[in-house]
Amino acid sequence: MCEKSGDMSGEIKKSGAMYGDAIYSDESPIAAFATVPGNSALSVIRCSGKGAVEMAALVFSAPDKLKNTQGNTVIHGWITTNGEKIDEVLVSVFRAPKSYTGEDSLDISCHGGAVTGKAVMNALKSTGFRDALPGEFTFRAFMNGKLDLTRSESVMELVAAKTDISRRHAIMRLSGSLFTEIDEIKKLIVQVLSGVEIYLDYSEDEISASFDTNASEEIAGKLPNKETALLAMERLKKLQASWQIERVYQEGVTVVIAGRPNAGKSSIFNSFLKEDRSIVTEIPGTTRDWIEAWVNIEGIPVKLVDTAGLRDTLDSVEKLGVERSLKILQEADIVLYLIDGEQGITAEDIEFMKRRERCIFIWNKFDISPVVSLPAEFADNVISVSAKTGEGLKDLYAAITSTVMSEAASDDMFNELAVSVGTVRQKKLVDAACSYLEEALTLAENEEPLDLIAPLLREAVNVLGEITGEVSTADILEEMFSRFCVGK
Amino acid sequence: MCEKSGDMSGEIKKSGAMYGDAIYSDESPIAAFATVPGNSALSVIRCSGKGAVEMAALVFSAPDKLKNTQGNTVIHGWITTNGEKIDEVLVSVFRAPKSYTGEDSLDISCHGGAVTGKAVMNALKSTGFRDALPGEFTFRAFMNGKLDLTRSESVMELVAAKTDISRRHAIMRLSGSLFTEIDEIKKLIVQVLSGVEIYLDYSEDEISASFDTNASEEIAGKLPNKETALLAMERLKKLQASWQIERVYQEGVTVVIAGRPNAGKSSIFNSFLKEDRSIVTEIPGTTRDWIEAWVNIEGIPVKLVDTAGLRDTLDSVEKLGVERSLKILQEADIVLYLIDGEQGITAEDIEFMKRRERCIFIWNKFDISPVVSLPAEFADNVISVSAKTGEGLKDLYAAITSTVMSEAASDDMFNELAVSVGTVRQKKLVDAACSYLEEALTLAENEEPLDLIAPLLREAVNVLGEITGEVSTADILEEMFSRFCVGK
Repeated sequence: MCEKSGDMSGEIKKSGAMYGDAIYSDESPIAAFATVPGNSALSVIRCSGKGAVEMAALVFSAPDKLKNTQGNTVIHGWITTNGEKIDEVLVSVFRAPKSYTGEDSLDISCHGGAVTGKAVMNALKSTGFRDALPGEFTFRAFMNGKLDLTRSESVMELVAAKTDISRRHAIMRLSGSLFTEIDEIKKLIVQVLSGVEIYLDYSEDEISASFDTNASEEIAGKLPNKETALLAMERLKKLQASWQIERVYQEGVTVVIAGRPNAGKSSIFNSFLKEDRSIVTEIPGTTRDWIEAWVNIEGIPVKLVDTAGLRDTLDSVEKLGVERSLKILQEADIVLYLIDGEQGITAEDIEFMKRRERCIFIWNKFDISPVVSLPAEFADNVISVSAKTGEGLKDLYAAITSTVMSEAASDDMFNELAVSVGTVRQKKLVDAACSYLEEALTLAENEEPLDLIAPLLREAVNVLGEITGEVSTADILEEMFSRFCVGK
Repeated sequence: MCEKSGDMSGEIKKSGAMYGDAIYSDESPIAAFATVPGNSALSVIRCSGKGAVEMAALVFSAPDKLKNTQGNTVIHGWITTNGEKIDEVLVSVFRAPKSYTGEDSLDISCHGGAVTGKAVMNALKSTGFRDALPGEFTFRAFMNGKLDLTRSESVMELVAAKTDISRRHAIMRLSGSLFTEIDEIKKLIVQVLSGVEIYLDYSEDEISASFDTNASEEIAGKLPNKETALLAMERLKKLQASWQIERVYQEGVTVVIAGRPNAGKSSIFNSFLKEDRSIVTEIPGTTRDWIEAWVNIEGIPVKLVDTAGLRDTLDSVEKLGVERSLKILQEADIVLYLIDGEQGITAEDIEFMKRRERCIFIWNKFDISPVVSLPAEFADNVISVSAKTGEGLKDLYAAITSTVMSEAASDDMFNELAVSVGTVRQKKLVDAACSYLEEALTLAENEEPLDLIAPLLREAVNVLGEITGEVSTADILEEMFSRFCVGK
């Protein structure tokens, strides 16, 4: 898929990235579960490496058939050890280089459950397969030029995606959107850099003689192709800004529901969950003093926290509860403050409303008690909702989205995001590229000598190369792939 | 794999087994997750039915390639809807009848995580796939003669297996051990039955003329081939008894640790867990008043319950705790009663020891305080253990195993179990076959007319046919397959 990264990483291949005592770089046969063990029909064990097919054949009921199987073929049989049938399996065989890793590999589809997959794994290990390290399959895919680093990272982003929008963004990167953008920006800077280097390498006379008139009009000390550098800068800035949005979709935000006792906090909490917005797999199984759940608000993963239990103990002697409640409020990205429509606004409510930023005020029980007599300064900032009838909830969702996004990006960006960076690593490198280019542009502005500018441009190009993996070191790769899950 | 069941189930094919409003029997394309959604490298979606490949091609990036793909082939591409890339996938294509279900089918291997698989599933459904009912893939495999009912059920037993021994037993049945045994027993009874029917159909003269002398020596009212009937009976009895053992391995037993405060209950509990015996996926996530965990004792799944918290409140005013503690003790298959070696045996200990059956008494803290002065009646029945040093734990495991198995079967059976029934359904039908055959033998013993005996033998044959599925009704199939998990 990716055209370049493989060749560039020869350096690493020799030295090898480390994970604890283990080394990522060899081609030894590895195996790992690619699925979660559990009460399911199937478990898939992924195997890859030099001689992987021959090794698996040692515990397969039809060894010769397996060894002679062409790539992209599924064969049926049994995993056996010492004549004992372990499980009936389907084995998908892939032949180098036409596989995920670029090596000979197998996906062994065994029966699900807590025990069967383990027994098959033990059989495989008895032939010499070792446990794969985190991200080791993808590491090999990168080393063999199957994926650049942005695509490698997008694989994990895809697995971690909490909502459909985060999935879409990851898929864009898996399809190469970020790789292409980085590559194009890099080419722009390389273009500027080569212009500079020509001026540094040749005397003015030579240039006049051998290049077009347009180029020869540029004088030393002025940046040739400055427009190109500005364009690169603009595109880098957009990438920088994209991380703000991306992070919201990847990590989500914490929204805390607060308000006086009986304002209807739990009802609002339940309204969010009722509409099948809950991200079920993320609900924590442990009991806590407060209730929380992940919900999907317009594609944004929202950790919704109901402080009902806590707030209601404010009157009691339990000091601990109050402290915890305040701590939760501090950690909130947004606070939904409920005003009890039946009771009307109270002094306590007003005090809270004055204090908080990033707070959405909700006039609840709207169906029985329409909003009345709000202090002027809050009048525009209150959403009328009925948790009971569901009226006003859509406005509330919109308010949450726009509050989140107002900090992250302009509406424009939010809607038109086509390329975005997907990881902190990428963001930091984009930042670095921005700094180098910015410094280069400043020096050019001050008409400093071009031989001071050239190294900055070169650094910018290098840093962009690190994003895609054209430029990489063992340290970078170790740091990156060890964050992956095993089996990927 | 199975030779017969398909043809026999034509009756059902017309009427169809029901699950709620849905019908199992049609060939419409169905899809379901075959893996647990979660933070894993892969999710697998299984699709099957008439036109399944053509339908999946509607949302595949290379539709013609997919449609023309031969069976047992894996192709790479993207799931797309309206030009939007949903996920990069590997699709394994299987062509009827060479597939699990016997129909055209596909295993779609997409990226793991909470969102991506769902998005692919939605794309598939948009083409007309419907959600598979529980066990529907295996139901179709049965209907198409790929699996008899004993093998179908073993698939779920395999997924549910808690220890390696339960897996082995399920694998034996998946390999056809139970099918073969039932088939052979049935043939024995059919042999007896045909002997009986010959006597009923022909006059004595005719028989003398056309059959060998041995047969002609039998007189009406005496069971011909009685030895064969007794052999069938013996083999049925063995199957009946096998369920006692099988159930232990499948469902496990509850072992409750009891004893006075500070006798070392929690230390013993932890000793069990320490040796990597814990069946991790089965530990409940919820907080309770007592602690429990599943552990593997010589292949037996044991739910180990530590009543520490409860027993220790016996002195306190909390009545509820005491009641719960007693309830847990009542539900125990085995109680491990700890005597505090340092304290020696107390009146309370003796009272408990007198009361309980299926109780193993443990002299704990053996390392500091060797067993002394036990009442004569308990002397043989106490195991010395040190939770601290681990001494004596092996004896304890052996005592648990033999206590469990003493109720289930003789040692002989326990060791030599080659064929066993795997489900309550099978056990009930074996019971029924036993009853019919026993009644037939009793009538024969009393020299009752053969025309009273023949219907009983016929019933026995029918009931055995139900076990394998040669004889089946929509009701049976519905009841059976609806217990399966979706995706199987």
